[in-house]
Amino acid sequence: MTTEAVKNALRRQEIELPSWAFGNSGTRFKVFPQPGVPRSPEEKLADAAVVHKLTGVAPSVALHIPWDKVDDYAKLAAYAKEQGVRLGAINSNVFQDNDYMLGSVTNPDPRVRRKATDHLLECVDIMDATGSRDLKLWFSDGTNYPGQDDIRDRQDRLAEALKEVYDRLGDDQRMLLEYKLFEPAFYTTDVPDWGTSYAHCLELGPKATVCIDTGHHAPGTNIEFIVAFLLRVGKLGAFDFNSRFYADDDLMVGAADPFQLFRIMNEIIRADALDPDRGIAFMLDQCHNIEPKIPAIIRSVMNVQEATAKALLVDRDALREAQQEGDVLGANAALMDAYNTDVRPLLADLRSEQGLDPNPIAAYQRSGYFEQIAHDRADGQQAGWGA
Amino acid sequence: MTTEAVKNALRRQEIELPSWAFGNSGTRFKVFPQPGVPRSPEEKLADAAVVHKLTGVAPSVALHIPWDKVDDYAKLAAYAKEQGVRLGAINSNVFQDNDYMLGSVTNPDPRVRRKATDHLLECVDIMDATGSRDLKLWFSDGTNYPGQDDIRDRQDRLAEALKEVYDRLGDDQRMLLEYKLFEPAFYTTDVPDWGTSYAHCLELGPKATVCIDTGHHAPGTNIEFIVAFLLRVGKLGAFDFNSRFYADDDLMVGAADPFQLFRIMNEIIRADALDPDRGIAFMLDQCHNIEPKIPAIIRSVMNVQEATAKALLVDRDALREAQQEGDVLGANAALMDAYNTDVRPLLADLRSEQGLDPNPIAAYQRSGYFEQIAHDRADGQQAGWGA
Amino acid sequence: MTTEAVKNALRRQEIELPSWAFGNSGTRFKVFPQPGVPRSPEEKLADAAVVHKLTGVAPSVALHIPWDKVDDYAKLAAYAKEQGVRLGAINSNVFQDNDYMLGSVTNPDPRVRRKATDHLLECVDIMDATGSRDLKLWFSDGTNYPGQDDIRDRQDRLAEALKEVYDRLGDDQRMLLEYKLFEPAFYTTDVPDWGTSYAHCLELGPKATVCIDTGHHAPGTNIEFIVAFLLRVGKLGAFDFNSRFYADDDLMVGAADPFQLFRIMNEIIRADALDPDRGIAFMLDQCHNIEPKIPAIIRSVMNVQEATAKALLVDRDALREAQQEGDVLGANAALMDAYNTDVRPLLADLRSEQGLDPNPIAAYQRSGYFEQIAHDRADGQQAGWGA
Amino acid sequence: MTTEAVKNALRRQEIELPSWAFGNSGTRFKVFPQPGVPRSPEEKLADAAVVHKLTGVAPSVALHIPWDKVDDYAKLAAYAKEQGVRLGAINSNVFQDNDYMLGSVTNPDPRVRRKATDHLLECVDIMDATGSRDLKLWFSDGTNYPGQDDIRDRQDRLAEALKEVYDRLGDDQRMLLEYKLFEPAFYTTDVPDWGTSYAHCLELGPKATVCIDTGHHAPGTNIEFIVAFLLRVGKLGAFDFNSRFYADDDLMVGAADPFQLFRIMNEIIRADALDPDRGIAFMLDQCHNIEPKIPAIIRSVMNVQEATAKALLVDRDALREAQQEGDVLGANAALMDAYNTDVRPLLADLRSEQGLDPNPIAAYQRSGYFEQIAHDRADGQQAGWGA
Repeated sequence: MTTEAVKNALRRQEIELPSWAFGNSGTRFKVFPQPGVPRSPEEKLADAAVVHKLTGVAPSVALHIPWDKVDDYAKLAAYAKEQGVRLGAINSNVFQDNDYMLGSVTNPDPRVRRKATDHLLECVDIMDATGSRDLKLWFSDGTNYPGQDDIRDRQDRLAEALKEVYDRLGDDQRMLLEYKLFEPAFYTTDVPDWGTSYAHCLELGPKATVCIDTGHHAPGTNIEFIVAFLLRVGKLGAFDFNSRFYADDDLMVGAADPFQLFRIMNEIIRADALDPDRGIAFMLDQCHNIEPKIPAIIRSVMNVQEATAKALLVDRDALREAQQEGDVLGANAALMDAYNTDVRPLLADLRSEQGLDPNPIAAYQRSGYFEQIAHDRADGQQAGWGA
Repeated sequence: MTTEAVKNALRRQEIELPSWAFGNSGTRFKVFPQPGVPRSPEEKLADAAVVHKLTGVAPSVALHIPWDKVDDYAKLAAYAKEQGVRLGAINSNVFQDNDYMLGSVTNPDPRVRRKATDHLLECVDIMDATGSRDLKLWFSDGTNYPGQDDIRDRQDRLAEALKEVYDRLGDDQRMLLEYKLFEPAFYTTDVPDWGTSYAHCLELGPKATVCIDTGHHAPGTNIEFIVAFLLRVGKLGAFDFNSRFYADDDLMVGAADPFQLFRIMNEIIRADALDPDRGIAFMLDQCHNIEPKIPAIIRSVMNVQEATAKALLVDRDALREAQQEGDVLGANAALMDAYNTDVRPLLADLRSEQGLDPNPIAAYQRSGYFEQIAHDRADGQQAGWGA
Repeated sequence: MTTEAVKNALRRQEIELPSWAFGNSGTRFKVFPQPGVPRSPEEKLADAAVVHKLTGVAPSVALHIPWDKVDDYAKLAAYAKEQGVRLGAINSNVFQDNDYMLGSVTNPDPRVRRKATDHLLECVDIMDATGSRDLKLWFSDGTNYPGQDDIRDRQDRLAEALKEVYDRLGDDQRMLLEYKLFEPAFYTTDVPDWGTSYAHCLELGPKATVCIDTGHHAPGTNIEFIVAFLLRVGKLGAFDFNSRFYADDDLMVGAADPFQLFRIMNEIIRADALDPDRGIAFMLDQCHNIEPKIPAIIRSVMNVQEATAKALLVDRDALREAQQEGDVLGANAALMDAYNTDVRPLLADLRSEQGLDPNPIAAYQRSGYFEQIAHDRADGQQAGWGA
Repeated sequence: MTTEAVKNALRRQEIELPSWAFGNSGTRFKVFPQPGVPRSPEEKLADAAVVHKLTGVAPSVALHIPWDKVDDYAKLAAYAKEQGVRLGAINSNVFQDNDYMLGSVTNPDPRVRRKATDHLLECVDIMDATGSRDLKLWFSDGTNYPGQDDIRDRQDRLAEALKEVYDRLGDDQRMLLEYKLFEPAFYTTDVPDWGTSYAHCLELGPKATVCIDTGHHAPGTNIEFIVAFLLRVGKLGAFDFNSRFYADDDLMVGAADPFQLFRIMNEIIRADALDPDRGIAFMLDQCHNIEPKIPAIIRSVMNVQEATAKALLVDRDALREAQQEGDVLGANAALMDAYNTDVRPLLADLRSEQGLDPNPIAAYQRSGYFEQIAHDRADGQQAGWGA
């Protein structure tokens, strides 16, 4: 691919920001508050808009209900537009009510299941108001002890709730079903792996697709294999990007294993699935427990861009030829050549061409935005996971 | 369940033995030969017959082609019958020919793919001759290095080969598709997890089902969840039983984590899927690198029996009631009560009622069989993985 | 060992309860409050005393500072005595102050290090007041991102702080240094494994020993090996018992892998290290996020007792003889025979002989204690990790 | 560091090649033979010399006894010199004799222990003849089943053997004690982790140091932490470099996680421990199961060079300043800036300055060496692990 073709592809790339990444977060041991943290959905959108303004690649913001609950979603959407961004996926939350201690849609108690499903349906109502295409479903449902509940019954309950929500979706709406190996459930999780998510999506129909959170796998899982597999069968709907060294899903995407991120993006490029028209949502879903939120998100966006640029630079003809010939080292070298390229100059050029500062982090630091919000938001209740 | 009902269920249980477990095996570092190891398929059958004679629960023997290749399979089946056992699943082997260095049915070279598929078709021919119901497919196919081959193309090639073999199956024949996280492939494996196997089986049709090898998962994978899930969707075809502490799949089933084996059998009993009529094959697939083969296999069979007996003893009414009430500790206790029960007396009784020695290991040691084979089989080429 | 000898050993067993296990706990996603949860250190002691009264084996209670901070520790000790228990290890907490975001004793900022070390010294003051022997140190210190801080400098800072605290210990006081692979730090942890803890303890001197938390290891780690190794070199000081299927350390000890707990206790018995005089502290350190606290703790205590009883029942002569002869299956069988024994009748007998109810869980449920505390403690602030 | 300083450091770098990497290797399933594979220690040395000639950085070759057993080691050393390389570490092999089925120096049978220790002593004799400084010890010793042998007794036996060998070492000789989590032992390994190796080395004395094989850890282990820790206490003796995605240790170093290799080399540079005078041996220890041996080794050497160059490029002042200020993102960025640099032009320059071809792989392919050995070595017995 020529440099110009690479740049053209990068110009069309879109990365969705999660509203909650701008709020305080932490571990079960401690949430460390940070200066300047937003106190409202509007302030989160304002911060996200800064990221988009500096990077040019993050035009939409995912909401989390009820963390981002407002009275008037149309007004919120208008506010977003004013800031230069749009509202993205709606994320449901059925894990922070006392009723959900033993599960939400898979709870043994039908009353709790009803309540949980009603929340999901409410999220579709919100999508109608915001014009969001995607409903992202993550269920913390599961059990902590062998015997605690019936694994199979819980699948039946899950299927029933998913069906009801699926049937409620409009023509242009989709359901993204996320999976996670464990946490907060410590023995079984009701959607623990891509196979479970895929099987349910297949049963539901074309509007249901799998969401891959890069931090939600067992040690050693080959994520790019899953990406390639789901692309092949047309069931990859979205990514939740983040990274990790152990079992958490908190770190900035690309921070723990940049080579893995490159391999994932390589499968996307291989399948020509980068363009927004292809319907795959590239979202961040990460925490910034100890680092400042906004520059951490800028850095994350840049990490995805760099991995994408490298993947675009792979000499596909050389790669395919070496693969066909069984030239193990040659094929590996074709991939590594792209990975080992320093794409930062190319991205700096691209930004300059787009009228952006070639160095978004430096531009942010010079902007005075942080000092401003640290001052303006000194009072009030900072947003956080429990907000 | 009454003790009598438990015994009745256990009386109908069947565990299939792998012919190769009687041969020499080892690690990549060393194969330690053992005295008395069989030199032919017939001697493997003779050893397996001893296990069945002593335990009463292992009436069939799986073959591995070409390790168990003979000129006349009908004659081999007759010999098995004479010994008191029958021939079971046919296991294909597309990993030990120099041509398969870069894969068998997923090899980039169409000539190698043809050769591999032809071997699979030959296995179905053998099934016709032996009367075997099950064709077990394990593919070592995969890649060692990023870029080495195209992940998605390999899935296309896999699907094509599976389809050709599937179409060749007779009305009473089935295909069991095994998955494995890694080894011998060290970067991608073409059928790495249950989701991949399930997706292919679903596409193929009702004669294709998933085979769960208990040693083939990423660390932390909840195997009983997979069992429950596949039982729910009617796609569980077989088990390859063994156990492990790390990434291997070599140890005697139940040796590393007897509680896990119990939880697996508990899902089988929960779904009323123990009876051979239900169509699930319970097979051993393990190595005995440093321990004597025959008593190790007897022990393995007994471990499965004990786990089954415990699972049968679970008070299902108490369990379900506690689950429905959200009584976490009560439900867990209902399961643990069964697990903590010493079922060895019950099994000893059962064996006595069946005219067997209550202690199969002791009976084997008294039998003089080992001394006999150690003497008789002193010459010749011992069977092994590479045989 | 005769049944009587087993019972005698069990009569002398002591398991220490953590005060914090009686309070509310949870995951980063949600803390589910439970009825009857204590509102003060005294109420935690009262609950712990109930566990001891019912099991006869849990005579001491570990405190966590500042969660259990009181004005008068002598008075608290007297209250404990009145309830029938005594105060045990003092656990420091240098992870819940905003200053500790980048570490406590290993923080790059000397002011924060001073503050953290002062807290540890204060804990020794408290030990003087309570008469506690053990100071348990767990450091959440570490980094989240490569480069964030200098790994080696942090070891220097750690060594310096440990030295200062060590020198402050009285003649009858000890330091227990706990290790943990990760969480809350997600890239490096300053005391991540037993080797690091051991190396520091060795440098410090005889009053410093390693504390093994059974939930703090990388996947696949053989914990009983570490137990055996540390016993051999005289550096095992304590256990923090809990269990897990994944990377957490929350579940009731023995719940996830009862066979592992047995193997750990088997090394203790092998080294004759069960008796309190041998100086090893057997402590619980677990959460009860979704199950009622008191019966969960009773169950945990019973799980340790059962594993201990099984380990005591191992026929050591038969085991050793088989080991010496290289009889792999015989040696394994000697161990498994003990594990497969149902020791619940023996423990019920022992309790009866001790004037206890043979079934502590049932006795607790009949006692009305839960109903009482659920009623009495309806108001006020429930204790929790953040309390 | 200036470019010139970086180049100067790289000019002094030395990477040791393992003779066995040039021979055939494989998995337990299959060894795929390759054309041109050496048939003798001399041919292995000739191949290694080619790697050194092309890269300029691999002047020594480690031997494996008995795989590289010859009658006259002085003559072999002279042959090596003639080829342009020298003999390096002597690797013992106590895992491929039938006697070692249940262990070598930790075997319950004193006769086997004697035999194993005698082999180790013989290796020191060979070192005397070859002038090698390092004795590398890897013990496959361990057990497969709980109870199989006494964990603690095996440590006693290990300590005894190590002591005898240590006492035999000459003034300029060292012992490198390698550790490995598992394989071929599947339950306990007698030297499973760095802590065990470190503890034994500490007891032995200054001539005993730890060897880190990058493929021998539990999932999630932070290897650079171990590097930093051992450097701090002066007990890091050597690396065995390779890489892996799962539990194997077979792939080319840097192939699976190039960022990890960089972080490891970063700790080396941080401690100024790259120079050969510092006494740390940087050795490859890997297999090339499906890729051609010589170019795979050239590639591995280049991967280490590239990681080293990047580590040398880290702006240490900027890094330290950001660390001291608690600037998480700034410190991480300082590290990543170096990692993201494309150092291939710098290394190509360096090679040109050294009179080498800037592209060693291309130079090898043009050289005709492979065609030559494929032709010349068509007959005879190819070297392999079992040779």
